[in-house]
Amino acid sequence: MQRLAERAGILIEALPYIKRYFGRTMVIKYGGNAMISEDLKQAVIEDVILMRYVGMNPVLVHGGGPEISSTMKRMGKEAEFVGGLRVTDKATMEIAQMVLVGKINTEIVSLINKHGGQAVGLSGKDGNLIRADKVAPRLNGDVPVDLGYVGDVAAIDPSILVTLTEKGYIPVISPVGIGTEGESLNINADHAAGAVAAALGAAKLILLTDIEGIMRDKNDSSTLVSALNISAARAAVSDGMVDKGMIPKVEACITALEAGVERAHIIDGRIQHSLLMEIFTDRGIGTMIAEEGEKVAG
Amino acid sequence: MQRLAERAGILIEALPYIKRYFGRTMVIKYGGNAMISEDLKQAVIEDVILMRYVGMNPVLVHGGGPEISSTMKRMGKEAEFVGGLRVTDKATMEIAQMVLVGKINTEIVSLINKHGGQAVGLSGKDGNLIRADKVAPRLNGDVPVDLGYVGDVAAIDPSILVTLTEKGYIPVISPVGIGTEGESLNINADHAAGAVAAALGAAKLILLTDIEGIMRDKNDSSTLVSALNISAARAAVSDGMVDKGMIPKVEACITALEAGVERAHIIDGRIQHSLLMEIFTDRGIGTMIAEEGEKVAG
Amino acid sequence: MQRLAERAGILIEALPYIKRYFGRTMVIKYGGNAMISEDLKQAVIEDVILMRYVGMNPVLVHGGGPEISSTMKRMGKEAEFVGGLRVTDKATMEIAQMVLVGKINTEIVSLINKHGGQAVGLSGKDGNLIRADKVAPRLNGDVPVDLGYVGDVAAIDPSILVTLTEKGYIPVISPVGIGTEGESLNINADHAAGAVAAALGAAKLILLTDIEGIMRDKNDSSTLVSALNISAARAAVSDGMVDKGMIPKVEACITALEAGVERAHIIDGRIQHSLLMEIFTDRGIGTMIAEEGEKVAG
Amino acid sequence: MQRLAERAGILIEALPYIKRYFGRTMVIKYGGNAMISEDLKQAVIEDVILMRYVGMNPVLVHGGGPEISSTMKRMGKEAEFVGGLRVTDKATMEIAQMVLVGKINTEIVSLINKHGGQAVGLSGKDGNLIRADKVAPRLNGDVPVDLGYVGDVAAIDPSILVTLTEKGYIPVISPVGIGTEGESLNINADHAAGAVAAALGAAKLILLTDIEGIMRDKNDSSTLVSALNISAARAAVSDGMVDKGMIPKVEACITALEAGVERAHIIDGRIQHSLLMEIFTDRGIGTMIAEEGEKVAG
Amino acid sequence: MQRLAERAGILIEALPYIKRYFGRTMVIKYGGNAMISEDLKQAVIEDVILMRYVGMNPVLVHGGGPEISSTMKRMGKEAEFVGGLRVTDKATMEIAQMVLVGKINTEIVSLINKHGGQAVGLSGKDGNLIRADKVAPRLNGDVPVDLGYVGDVAAIDPSILVTLTEKGYIPVISPVGIGTEGESLNINADHAAGAVAAALGAAKLILLTDIEGIMRDKNDSSTLVSALNISAARAAVSDGMVDKGMIPKVEACITALEAGVERAHIIDGRIQHSLLMEIFTDRGIGTMIAEEGEKVAG
Amino acid sequence: MQRLAERAGILIEALPYIKRYFGRTMVIKYGGNAMISEDLKQAVIEDVILMRYVGMNPVLVHGGGPEISSTMKRMGKEAEFVGGLRVTDKATMEIAQMVLVGKINTEIVSLINKHGGQAVGLSGKDGNLIRADKVAPRLNGDVPVDLGYVGDVAAIDPSILVTLTEKGYIPVISPVGIGTEGESLNINADHAAGAVAAALGAAKLILLTDIEGIMRDKNDSSTLVSALNISAARAAVSDGMVDKGMIPKVEACITALEAGVERAHIIDGRIQHSLLMEIFTDRGIGTMIAEEGEKVAG
Repeated sequence: MQRLAERAGILIEALPYIKRYFGRTMVIKYGGNAMISEDLKQAVIEDVILMRYVGMNPVLVHGGGPEISSTMKRMGKEAEFVGGLRVTDKATMEIAQMVLVGKINTEIVSLINKHGGQAVGLSGKDGNLIRADKVAPRLNGDVPVDLGYVGDVAAIDPSILVTLTEKGYIPVISPVGIGTEGESLNINADHAAGAVAAALGAAKLILLTDIEGIMRDKNDSSTLVSALNISAARAAVSDGMVDKGMIPKVEACITALEAGVERAHIIDGRIQHSLLMEIFTDRGIGTMIAEEGEKVAG
Repeated sequence: MQRLAERAGILIEALPYIKRYFGRTMVIKYGGNAMISEDLKQAVIEDVILMRYVGMNPVLVHGGGPEISSTMKRMGKEAEFVGGLRVTDKATMEIAQMVLVGKINTEIVSLINKHGGQAVGLSGKDGNLIRADKVAPRLNGDVPVDLGYVGDVAAIDPSILVTLTEKGYIPVISPVGIGTEGESLNINADHAAGAVAAALGAAKLILLTDIEGIMRDKNDSSTLVSALNISAARAAVSDGMVDKGMIPKVEACITALEAGVERAHIIDGRIQHSLLMEIFTDRGIGTMIAEEGEKVAG
Repeated sequence: MQRLAERAGILIEALPYIKRYFGRTMVIKYGGNAMISEDLKQAVIEDVILMRYVGMNPVLVHGGGPEISSTMKRMGKEAEFVGGLRVTDKATMEIAQMVLVGKINTEIVSLINKHGGQAVGLSGKDGNLIRADKVAPRLNGDVPVDLGYVGDVAAIDPSILVTLTEKGYIPVISPVGIGTEGESLNINADHAAGAVAAALGAAKLILLTDIEGIMRDKNDSSTLVSALNISAARAAVSDGMVDKGMIPKVEACITALEAGVERAHIIDGRIQHSLLMEIFTDRGIGTMIAEEGEKVAG
Repeated sequence: MQRLAERAGILIEALPYIKRYFGRTMVIKYGGNAMISEDLKQAVIEDVILMRYVGMNPVLVHGGGPEISSTMKRMGKEAEFVGGLRVTDKATMEIAQMVLVGKINTEIVSLINKHGGQAVGLSGKDGNLIRADKVAPRLNGDVPVDLGYVGDVAAIDPSILVTLTEKGYIPVISPVGIGTEGESLNINADHAAGAVAAALGAAKLILLTDIEGIMRDKNDSSTLVSALNISAARAAVSDGMVDKGMIPKVEACITALEAGVERAHIIDGRIQHSLLMEIFTDRGIGTMIAEEGEKVAG
Repeated sequence: MQRLAERAGILIEALPYIKRYFGRTMVIKYGGNAMISEDLKQAVIEDVILMRYVGMNPVLVHGGGPEISSTMKRMGKEAEFVGGLRVTDKATMEIAQMVLVGKINTEIVSLINKHGGQAVGLSGKDGNLIRADKVAPRLNGDVPVDLGYVGDVAAIDPSILVTLTEKGYIPVISPVGIGTEGESLNINADHAAGAVAAALGAAKLILLTDIEGIMRDKNDSSTLVSALNISAARAAVSDGMVDKGMIPKVEACITALEAGVERAHIIDGRIQHSLLMEIFTDRGIGTMIAEEGEKVAG
Repeated sequence: MQRLAERAGILIEALPYIKRYFGRTMVIKYGGNAMISEDLKQAVIEDVILMRYVGMNPVLVHGGGPEISSTMKRMGKEAEFVGGLRVTDKATMEIAQMVLVGKINTEIVSLINKHGGQAVGLSGKDGNLIRADKVAPRLNGDVPVDLGYVGDVAAIDPSILVTLTEKGYIPVISPVGIGTEGESLNINADHAAGAVAAALGAAKLILLTDIEGIMRDKNDSSTLVSALNISAARAAVSDGMVDKGMIPKVEACITALEAGVERAHIIDGRIQHSLLMEIFTDRGIGTMIAEEGEKVAG
């Protein structure tokens, strides 16, 4: 009985957060360990389904994980580099797309449906969701380097997402864009998530990572920055304070916030139910980036 | 952090129940101590708002509480009896209606709105919600005794409830019916709740009382009957096993179940958040009456 | 036959007015003798139902009548005064609300439904309809006098009115507002009607009173002012031309007109079917206040 | 003032009838003097517009009047007969259609729109409204006589009527049907009205004629039959009690009633506002035919 | 087989045009030989039905053809002239309307329905579609000449067209307008078509004529102007380059284009399926007038 | 000009077929050479887009083609056999799914979108579209042979297809089903297409193959059976008349027809635009199976 009362109390504590986000869109970048460990996977999926049932519209964007590389190896494909940058040739892109769309995405959809949600998998090609431009960074001198089938988000057409969420489906998106010739382009999943959040006017963008958040010293948890504003975030990138792997995440947050998303969060996907911890508490976890940057409620 | 994880875990444990009752109607008879103690009042209101936000359609029917008698006393009105039965004369009915509709109902509406819900108060007269027939029990011999303005539910027109719940409002209903001449009739609140649950095809009818449930010995908690089927419930009434005050509650449950309501519950309103305890656990609390009568999930 | 032809002719004479107000909202302040005499009551209710059937959206706001005082007396409650002003303490407010919401409002709803309409009673608390601020007039010096539970309309949320009128219901509103702490506040019914008319963009605000209209000499019918414009109305208040009891009515008219209501009328509720007389004739009856102030059609 | 009060009283007397027919369809056969006299024309049009504004769906079917013959004469076209029956050859049909659709119908539409309604003219060809079969009565022996372009209603497709009435338009229908080859066929306007009423499930079919109703002696008003049931109506036709010109009217009534129309009325179109007299009184005017045949309300 | 493959190929060639005009409105002025020859009539009707089925909203405006004059002659009516201009007296207008609305329009509706479309005939009076002002040109000096029942389009209310096209009907419009007194006015059909196209924001206005298009020398096909812009079109009118009969057509095109219609076309209605030829090819046929005036795709 | 006229004529010839299938669903099994040759691919895609634009709802189910085997080979995976039957172990299923969902499906979606359609790719897992049961054929004796991740369609939930087609999207489905444990099962694409057609109540099921249709002698085109009824189709299977590879196709046709699909077609996907040839002609091409079995229109 005591136990029951405690449970009821905790549900009631969740009420203010449920009210606040009722009918709002939450874009979640799903990657890292949360995609590998069976326990973490299940916990993330449960969090997402709960979010849907209490009235939010969760939209998932997943990353690639280690499976692209392992599949490439199995297919005897070696990585190629130009000017120090990894090149995605046609065969690589084909493998990446098979793994992203035909394996990872389908598995996430399976898991959600198995646990009682209604998911639909999408690549950026479905319903012309993500249009992209080829990336050609200028390295030394002014010579643009052709990295092959790699792209930056050019435009999001959210119609298919609206069609699906209105009917209660949870969209799961693979980071594959459509090039100007209709070809597939590999897109950074963090950037894709940021752009989708921006296009949907989401309440939050939440990036699941393998680290506690942005830290002044990445080996010292006590240096975690729990909140910063956009200009501080920009400074942290340009000052080299944030780790290289963290840069696209911070960029995605800035993209989303500038388009009107209220808050962006970089949280630790290695903690079970970290999504709920972020959403259903005032303090939140990890690092929040917001226009104003102070850590107020949620 | 430990605390946060626990909270998340408990939210996840609620998920199966949220799924099960998503979009379903829950009729709650609100009475007894839960209407008097400030703490219990607030807890019931929070429970109801939470139910609404996680996708259920709660509908409240409230009882009279001790306020009708105290108001009558203040107005110098004495109770009248005929053949041992209390009579509701015109003046008494007027006072009862003022207290029910103009005080108790309005207070519940206030509380819900103050806590972030959107309630609308109704008497059985609004939108012709509850039509009633005068009650005239035959006491000794065949002589029907005129009890005055007391009625039994004759018909429910749920249109106004549907109009309101579709727009997200929580209806709060006073047990006042419309007689054949348009006059107000006092109606047993348990019966009103049972009839409303029946008319709405509710998933559950939940009666909040001041006792743990149906008990073989009402002074011994260990004799609580946690589940019984309709015929056992009928037998319990006719055998005199259930207390006199419990009879209309059991009758309301039977009315609702016969019309297709899935489960009816008599639970202890003196326990904080007893509504959530009932809804969000398999074992439930109090006494469940159902067609099949075994205490399965929820 | 002659009689039939006359009737048909009169119906046809009503056609231009029916066309003009088709689909338009009419806010009616219902008070005074029209609420006491059985004959007048029935006539008002018939007028309102007819208005609904010929395509208008009537919304009623009722006043208190003499019943609040009589109920207070029966409950041994004496009126209190501070600095010459009547004070509404908590107990008084409670009684007022019981009488307004639980007696007067319910009776009007009953009558409408009995005559074939579909009414729903509301207080300002239902669906957060009327938010109010406490009134604290500064009397002598600068000292604000606490009049207790008395308020001025702060904001109207017309959503619940729209929900109901769209489905064909006639809303009947008690002048009780929600204070900043969620408490009930007594509100002048004329002011409430004016604010509701303003919020709904009504075509007309019609105030039923116990006098023929605004008169230069209130004992001489021949001094009736049949039309005046807003500035004349304001002047009439400040010049003391209008009687004290008439002031809130004129204020309500001004509030409504400034928010875009087309015409406001103060008419004699002691005349049977005065509502129809006002609506279905060019000359109208009583005093019309309008932006332009000339007595043109309707 | 007295006058105003009388008017209001008469409007209130109309209320029960307005309620009864709210949202119901009324099919009116418009013919005879009511189509010729300017005063009667205007009165009918006002009646129809009033019906629309108080919530009914009036649908007009008009007849030919004397204009077909006069136009034929002007065009040097002589009437032809076979076996004593008038023949409608191609040229005659063409003229009839021009007069019906291009003159009479358009004029009625004009009048309604000029008086504030929204009418749309239709022939039976628009939206495939009236399909018809050629009529070939067997006269002497078994030889069918070819009467040319004359038809009986075979089927009504009411879709276009529903489309128009839902948007508030008043349909005005010319009695021209579509033959099996797509050719125009002349149709008896009474029959067309009966079939349209049947297809729409109208509340009433009202036929405006130049006589007071069915009379036992057509020269003696005192022999007017104010009500009869279907079998009596059938008998009246077979017994020769009803005049030849009255037969198609009685047949139209029977067709409509058998398909579920509640009442059919043959009334005197020479009386101003006879439509309103019929609809807004219990006694009605003229002859009512109904399944049960007794003259109850309406 | 070869034949089948060719057919499929041609259907595929139509695809880009079907895409381009999907959901767009096409206003077609139907007149001249295309209204007289049986073969051409059928071809136009088939074209229009095809347009509807592949997702366009065709709206037809028809002209008078030679039938008005022939009917007038049959009715012994002689043409009248004032100051060299033809006068339309009341009788003439009546005949014109009968022929337009009761003959030509009905025939077109018949044909469309016979071939599987769903047409509804309208005059400018139905649903108050075309309001018109009387024309009174000032001839010699400043004296306006009364030409009788002749009008210019004053305003289009497209509501009835929207109601019909939304339900899949094809509207067929007779060029009859409503004068300020509700009287019928004869309107130039080209002007009517231009005004309707303007009011509907059509994609195209297409005028079917008896000539190949605008030609520098109307007897020499090789002088056909295949495209010109608005100012060139205006110049062509003022320079006298275009034939007198062509002037209202060019004016209609200019009216439509100035209101936002994309392209206007004057094409040869003597060629079978010229409508499809215009719509389903890049080069089109006849003369195109457009804002920019160069003959780009379609 | 001659050419234009011919084109128009052919479009008009298509009209009866467009009418017949307007708003109807067409399920197309897309496989074989039509999926390999670039020219054939483009032709199929154009056919499908044209079908959509002229009002049909095309739904594609694609097969695997040779790419699954080639990818397996590249990944060093050898085929396994039990009792002569091919076994799909977990790794093979993973590869099959990657190729089907992540390569073939995505390519088809890309092509459709590139040519102006709006496609969305689905596996049977999206929105719980295809539930399947594991197949375990009993080979010799009664011993069921475990073929691994191979399934038969158990149930189709067409909700996601309805959601997408209502908004104008073209669904493209990979033949992957959900097993009872949520695992992916390989499903015969012909069977999947048949089941989807059955669930959607399609007008037609069309299977694109690499042969002209069902032939009595598969090497002799002149033995093509152009139409047969269900019982003849069943007999053809049991008599061994149809080739082994043809059996699932005929089975799919029977499944669809028994569920109410009107016609099923096995046509030659090696012919450009064979889809249009089938749909837009009376004779059709290939073999039609229908309940009645005679080759009537379409």
